[in-house]
Amino acid sequence: MDPDSLSKAFVEHYYTTFDSNRSNLIGLYQESSMLSFEGEKIQGAQNISNKLNSLPFQQCKHNISTVDCQPSGPAGGMLLFVSGNLQLPGEEHALKFSQMFHLIPTAQGSFYVFNDIFRLNYA
Amino acid sequence: MDPDSLSKAFVEHYYTTFDSNRSNLIGLYQESSMLSFEGEKIQGAQNISNKLNSLPFQQCKHNISTVDCQPSGPAGGMLLFVSGNLQLPGEEHALKFSQMFHLIPTAQGSFYVFNDIFRLNYA
Repeated sequence: MDPDSLSKAFVEHYYTTFDSNRSNLIGLYQESSMLSFEGEKIQGAQNISNKLNSLPFQQCKHNISTVDCQPSGPAGGMLLFVSGNLQLPGEEHALKFSQMFHLIPTAQGSFYVFNDIFRLNYA
Repeated sequence: MDPDSLSKAFVEHYYTTFDSNRSNLIGLYQESSMLSFEGEKIQGAQNISNKLNSLPFQQCKHNISTVDCQPSGPAGGMLLFVSGNLQLPGEEHALKFSQMFHLIPTAQGSFYVFNDIFRLNYA
C-alpha cells in the first residue's frame, strides 16, 4: 500500500473507531506510546486508553478536512498530520482540531502509534 | 537542555528568522528534508528555501499559541507541534495555522528539520 493510501486508511480507521467505540483504540498503542492531549502528556497504551475513555462526552463525530503524510526516517515510520472538526452532542458549532500521529511498523507488518499529539484550534 | 526548553528555543528561532529574513531558514534543512506546505510536498533544503522565499508576502508576524514536544524514538529525534496565528500586511484578521517539525540530531550536536508540515486552519 502506498503511503497516501495507508495514511487515509489509518485515519478512517482511527476516527471511525473513536466515534463508535473508542475503547477499541487501545490496540493501536503500545507501552512506549505517548499522547499529548491539550498539553497533557500520557504514556502507555492503558493510560492513553483510560484518558480517551474518560473524555466527558459519549458520542462524537470527527469530520476530516486534510491529511498530510511523510516518511519519518529510514526505519519505515510515517508521520500523519490531520485537521478537521469535532461535533459534540448538544454543541451548535463543531470544534476545529489538529492532530499528528507517528506510526511505527510492527514485526507483524502492521503499524502502531508511537506519538500522538492532539490540539483543539480555538477561534 | 531539556526537551521542553529545546523545543521552545527552536520555535522562537524558527519563527523569528521566518519573520525577519526567511532565506536564512535554509540552514535548518538538509537534502533529505521534506516540507508539506498546504498539501504541496517539497524535498531538499534548496527547494524548501525557494518555496518559502516565493510566498507572496514580504512581511509577516507569527504569534505562537501552543508548543507540544515528544521524543520521536531511540535515535534522539524530537517532534514539535505548534499552533498559532500569522499576521500578514494589509490583512485585518490573522490566519490561524498548525505546523509540525521532526528534528533529527546532527553529528555536530545540533538538530536539523527532517519533516515539516504546515497547514492553515481555515475557519
